[in-house]
Amino acid sequence: MELCGGTKARITIISVGSDNDDCGYRYERAFRDAGARRISAVNFESRADCNAESHDAALTSADGILMVGHDAAMLSETLSATPIARQIAHRNAQGMHVAGAGAGAAFLPRQMIVGGQGGTTPRADIVQLAPGLGLIDQLVIDQHFRHQDRLGRMLMALAYSPRAIGIGIDEDTAGFIGVDQKLQVVGSGGITVIDTSQLQHSAIHPDRSHTPVSMIGLHLDILVAGSVYDMSAHMASINTSPSV
Amino acid sequence: MELCGGTKARITIISVGSDNDDCGYRYERAFRDAGARRISAVNFESRADCNAESHDAALTSADGILMVGHDAAMLSETLSATPIARQIAHRNAQGMHVAGAGAGAAFLPRQMIVGGQGGTTPRADIVQLAPGLGLIDQLVIDQHFRHQDRLGRMLMALAYSPRAIGIGIDEDTAGFIGVDQKLQVVGSGGITVIDTSQLQHSAIHPDRSHTPVSMIGLHLDILVAGSVYDMSAHMASINTSPSV
Repeated sequence: MELCGGTKARITIISVGSDNDDCGYRYERAFRDAGARRISAVNFESRADCNAESHDAALTSADGILMVGHDAAMLSETLSATPIARQIAHRNAQGMHVAGAGAGAAFLPRQMIVGGQGGTTPRADIVQLAPGLGLIDQLVIDQHFRHQDRLGRMLMALAYSPRAIGIGIDEDTAGFIGVDQKLQVVGSGGITVIDTSQLQHSAIHPDRSHTPVSMIGLHLDILVAGSVYDMSAHMASINTSPSV
Repeated sequence: MELCGGTKARITIISVGSDNDDCGYRYERAFRDAGARRISAVNFESRADCNAESHDAALTSADGILMVGHDAAMLSETLSATPIARQIAHRNAQGMHVAGAGAGAAFLPRQMIVGGQGGTTPRADIVQLAPGLGLIDQLVIDQHFRHQDRLGRMLMALAYSPRAIGIGIDEDTAGFIGVDQKLQVVGSGGITVIDTSQLQHSAIHPDRSHTPVSMIGLHLDILVAGSVYDMSAHMASINTSPSV
């Protein structure tokens, strides 16, 4: 809200799924409680819905968009590569802020994790990937990283995405990525960064999907509030001067 | 068994706890089923028990010892720094093989994880450490790494142990560490190696125990059967010629 202009910012909250899922409306109330005066929530029930021009105004005039959702697969199935998705990406390239919460965060990059099993060791069958919104390349985001055993599925997603960076976000924690490709950490938890840019070896056996996959040369950083990860330089640093 | 001389090897299985826990005896049966002819199991119920000379013979004459147990804290409380523990370490320095299964593996290095909470992000209160057998320095071993969410507690144990290497072992998987300090992986799962030798930053706030701890500059390798980790050179490699 601050980045988008404060309480007068026009913020559109986007959710997918049935009307029974009031996810978007709960976020709308939270923004109003925080003082936002020009806030709207749009729910897309189907891909056909994502062509509707009636929603265009809410997107065209928005200062910021927040993607929300519990169901990563449904976000991808409903929104990816639709006119609405293209418009969001186009406006983001022009400078409009786009945020994601929960599965909505995972949806922001070019590809996303939509499902998988728990476990630390990467195995070919441990993760399912799907197209995301495409705002960022070479990045995989997973959420609720602290409470769930999601390292293996993240590593496997990265094995499929050469030179990508994986970001696991704890609850009550956020990362702000600027146009300078720097990620700033905010909140009470941590962000786990796994960098594959110096991966020396990774072997996937497509016909032996439950075989563990060796990955040699990963870099791992645990970042807390005040830390910055430069995604271009592949370098983490402790930055005590907040400049979001 | 092969390393110790085959079916004629004298192998002593060591467990701790009450007589009701037949953990050691189940391993004894497994070795007999595999053809071992000179196998014995010794259970220590208390630290006082670990001074008993009656057990000395089983240790002095053994070609190999296997430490077993479910309860890491009980292993440390019962055995660490006892005459029995010192004798095992002394004989291992002379060349006797020592193995560990389950918590028995975690018990082999100088310090061990005896408890902790699940989670990916290291926090000061996430792990409890206790003295181990002391056969290896600068190494922390955790087991059942695949099925449980143990990255955070391993990272926190490493934050307390500068320049240490952390090894997380999947089920149905083993690591063989030779006198050359090379770790060889055997089994159907993976071994997660976390190397802190190039850690650039780690901040522990002792008075804010639930605050996440930032750790920058960790190296992460996932090794599968055939891989080798050189603990002196801090380097992993794919070695397809087994030479255990």
